[in-house]
This record gives sequence, C-alpha cells and structure tokens, in this order.
Amino acid sequence: MARLATRLTERLGIAHPILSAPMALAGGGALAAAVTRAGGLGLIGGGYGDATWLDQQFAAAGNTQTGCGFITWSMAKRPELLTQALAHKPAVLMLSFGDPRPFATEIAAAGVPLICQCQSLQHVRQGLEAGAAIIVAQGAEAGGHGARRATLPFVPEAADLIARESPQTLLLAAGGIADGRGLAAALMLGADGVLVGTRFWASREALVHERHHAAAVAATGDGTVRSSLPDIARQLDWPKPFDIRVADNAFIAQWAGRDHELKAAIATEATAYREAFMAGDPDKAAVIFGEAAGLIADVPSAGEIVERMVEEAAALLGGAGRFLG
Amino acid sequence: MARLATRLTERLGIAHPILSAPMALAGGGALAAAVTRAGGLGLIGGGYGDATWLDQQFAAAGNTQTGCGFITWSMAKRPELLTQALAHKPAVLMLSFGDPRPFATEIAAAGVPLICQCQSLQHVRQGLEAGAAIIVAQGAEAGGHGARRATLPFVPEAADLIARESPQTLLLAAGGIADGRGLAAALMLGADGVLVGTRFWASREALVHERHHAAAVAATGDGTVRSSLPDIARQLDWPKPFDIRVADNAFIAQWAGRDHELKAAIATEATAYREAFMAGDPDKAAVIFGEAAGLIADVPSAGEIVERMVEEAAALLGGAGRFLG
Repeated sequence: MARLATRLTERLGIAHPILSAPMALAGGGALAAAVTRAGGLGLIGGGYGDATWLDQQFAAAGNTQTGCGFITWSMAKRPELLTQALAHKPAVLMLSFGDPRPFATEIAAAGVPLICQCQSLQHVRQGLEAGAAIIVAQGAEAGGHGARRATLPFVPEAADLIARESPQTLLLAAGGIADGRGLAAALMLGADGVLVGTRFWASREALVHERHHAAAVAATGDGTVRSSLPDIARQLDWPKPFDIRVADNAFIAQWAGRDHELKAAIATEATAYREAFMAGDPDKAAVIFGEAAGLIADVPSAGEIVERMVEEAAALLGGAGRFLG
Repeated sequence: MARLATRLTERLGIAHPILSAPMALAGGGALAAAVTRAGGLGLIGGGYGDATWLDQQFAAAGNTQTGCGFITWSMAKRPELLTQALAHKPAVLMLSFGDPRPFATEIAAAGVPLICQCQSLQHVRQGLEAGAAIIVAQGAEAGGHGARRATLPFVPEAADLIARESPQTLLLAAGGIADGRGLAAALMLGADGVLVGTRFWASREALVHERHHAAAVAATGDGTVRSSLPDIARQLDWPKPFDIRVADNAFIAQWAGRDHELKAAIATEATAYREAFMAGDPDKAAVIFGEAAGLIADVPSAGEIVERMVEEAAALLGGAGRFLG
C-alpha cells in the first residue's frame, strides 16, 4: 500500500495524514480504533459530554491509540469531562465550537496535543492564541455542525495566517473531503492532512442506523441543507454562528421557516423527534451528513476507506507532473 | 514561463487552463483581452444584456479572441442579444443562472462552444442536455451570484456524473480560486481548468472603482455574505435559488432581515443605492467579491495574475511527488 508523508504524519507518527472527525454519537471507539489501525488517527466523539459513554468508547478502542474531541461550549458546562478524557491519555484532544483558550493549560499540562477546529479566520486566531498544535479549517459543506466559510478558499487563507504567525502549527482541511481527490486537493491548498467526517460516518464501524446510511448512499450532494431545526427539536442551545448540515428531508421541509412554531410545540415534538431518530427514521428526524454524500456509494469498513483515499491521492499526486506542459 | 496542459488547453488552443469569469459590468473587453493575451481565455461579461455596452466591449478587446457570458434568465427576455454576441464570433459562449436548453441550437449553429455554469448537480444534468462543451461547477464561495453547493465537493461529484454520461464534456471549477493553490487543487479534484472571478475583479483592467478594490484588499474571507438585498436595491428580479455574495458591509447590516422594508422604501432607496455604487462608496452599496478576497493583497495586471497562478500551480504539481512516502 502507498504511503503519504506530510508534517502531520511525522509529528503524530502515523502512516497517512487522515484523521476521523469526532462525530457526536456516531464516532465511537470502534470507528476511531479502526481508523488508527488503518494508518490514520481516529477520534472518539466526546460530543456534548457523557461520562459513561466516554469511558465505554475508550474501552471499545482497547489498546489502540485514539484521540478525542469535544463540543467546546457544551463541555465547558462540565469541564470534569475534559479531565476524564485526558486521563485516558488520548493521542490528541480536539475542541470545536467555542473558545478553546480556557482549557489550553490543562490540556498542555497533560502533554496532549491540542487540535482546534475553526470555522472562520477569527477562530483560527483564537486557536493560535490557545497554543493549538493543529488547526482544522472546517468548511460549511461539512456534515453536522459548522458555520459559513467554504473549505477551498478557507484552507489557503488559514495556511497564510499560520505561516506568518505560528509556522510550526499544523493545518488540517475539513469539509467535503471523502476521497483521494479531496485529500490531494487539500495538500495542494497547503494543508498537512485532512479531517474526515461524512465518509467515516458512512462506514461499517460508525454508530449509525442502516436506514440513515441508505439515505446517504442514495443522496446527491444537492440534497443537504444547513439548518437550526434539528437543534431546536433536540433542545440543544447552540450558540451563533453555528448550525448543522443535514439531509434536506421531510422533517426539514415540514418546519422550514417555522422555528418559532417548532419551539412552541417542543413539549410533544422533542419526544417525536427523539423516537424517530432512535428508530432510524430518515424522514421524521435529521440525518446528519454533508455535501460529500454525493461522493459516497457504499458503506465499507473504515480501513477500506483509508486505503482507497490513500491509493487515489497517491496516484493523483504521483501523476501530477503530467499537467506540466 | 511554465505551462499547464490539460484537455481544456488542448481543446481551446490556449496555454493555460484559466478563464476569467464574465462578470457583469466589471469584466469588459480590456480585462478579457488581457487574460487571453496572458495565455488564458478572457470572457466579456454580457451580464443582464445591453446591446451598446456589448459592442463597446468587443471593440475594446480588439483583435484579441475572447468569449462572452450571459445571465440566462435576463438574456432570455431579449434573445437578440445572444444573436448579437454570436455575430462577434466569440471563442466560447457561456450561460449561467437559468435554463440553457432553449439557446443551445442557435449557439451550436454558430459553431461556438457552449459553456454552462452550474450551481447544482441538477444544473449539470441540464447543461449536459443542452450539449455543453464545457460545464462549470460553481461553488457558493464565489463572489457575485450563485447558489448553495461548495466547490470542493461539488467539482468531483460533477466530474463523476460527466464521466458516466458525457465523458467528452470538459469541466471547470469556479468559486474560491484565486491563486496557484486553488488551481492545483481544482486539477486534483478532476477539473480540466478553472474559471476565476474575484481575483480578476481585483485587477487593473477590471471596471471596478478603486475604493471597491481597496475594500477587497482589506477584507479577510470572513467578511463576505450571501444576500438578496443588493438585488432588491437594484430592482433585479433574480429567480430562486440564486442570491449574491458581497462584502458584509454597512449596507448589508442596515437592511439585514428587513427585505420587505427595503422593498417598501425602494422608490428612494434604489436611487440612493445606485448613486452610492457609481460613486464607489464601499459602505452604502454592495461591493461584489467572494471569499477569495482573503487571498488577495494587491491589484496587479490580469497578465501578472495569470502568470502567478501558473507558476505557483506548476511548482505545486511538479513537486507533488514529495508527499509519496
């Protein structure tokens, strides 16, 4: 199998510059460990923070080294979860969606590299202030939570800022990357590697209902939308500027432009939503994937996903000289 | 100077796979001719359609071969403008923002290659039905009008569709591409070349007020927003799903969430807006640039832009083998 070497693979001691996104609920220890075993680095989705779930998922990863990621504004309400995660000696600790600076000292003291996922150049500045070892520039085409910037122009702009202000900090691209083409493009844009969500969400090891997987396989990239409705239905108080990219399904159509009505009916709607989600109903609750669903036609193992991405990217990069006239 | 060879450069007989976007008002004959002389292909912005302006701009291009592009839904109201443009024997004729199929026969009869700019996979299917020689997959990070898809995942998905259904059709990436990194990334994603707007808008030959140029140079990529407000102020009846990416300035802040109030006050506001725009006021009217403004630090000649993009992309592509471990 081909290998791809960047500053990231050197720094983390991994074979390929591919990290799996710490997807809340969907990205457990089995997925994270599978990505690591394939030569990348898998991240457990600490998400909103649940002490029992976190321990279970680190246990599921077994002796395989994984990282862990939190939704910062939520973890900030129970910072003991960070302490708990650090006790598992994760390979990296990622923070996204909120100010990472209050937690930087504890993470540094644990000797764990901090990854800050950023949705704007302003966030990148904040991440550098927090002393991040790695910045993730996440575009709005990503599935799940995010903001407004797009991956293709955001990554080189973040690279320029980092080169000026903190050249030893590494950069990952996230959002819309599901195959070797996206990986090769990210390296051309100045990233040291990629953080991949939707493609690993659609893997056998992900904790995702098979009907949700089927919806992603059937979707084109046109079939997603950014919305606040799923968070309203789940009674999650997400701060601005974040919302969530999901399938543009019947649930979204039913409530589009009617945020206030959904809030008014939340006593019954929250239960209906939760039950539909747990049952894997792809119409009555959100299905969380990004525009990269249009590049996904199957649900293989995470290891096969890593292998395909690396082989395709290596072929593209190795053959890039053909464009020189 | 380096050269970059792709199917596009072969097909069009040009040195570099770089086209300038046909930007309404900003992209005249001088800019288009400068891009062509530098080895790319420049497109005159036919925009909403103005017979006098069109003839003036073809005259300004002189003997240099250029293409021309229209806003389809607007040109459709005065299709004689298409006939007029074709009489100038443009190198290519580009249609964007509307159904191209009614115009395909006339364009084919003139022997001019049709470019269809697409904002969704659905649009790509329509473009292939129209017999487009070239499809442009335009991401929402682009300045000016567009829709919702993002360049990075949209381009490879369009490439896959084209490979299955019409493999002789070429593909360009548009949206967020302003330097050699974006160009190299686009080629890795499966594009045969790029269509570049904002970077050429910020060139000496563009018909853009110097205060607007200064606003783009000062902006980061965080400082833009998609909105319908500029079209309301200009009394342009843009159909869904299109809106326009512009600087997130005082005009946008003033009317944000108040579309109906702007419409109600349009008798006076339209005049105020037009006067502010013509005066180059960067606060009281829209300044039209995309997220790529964050990659722009100067206003050089269009020829220098082409040269920089090619040199940087050639270095990246020529050195891409360094990633193979």
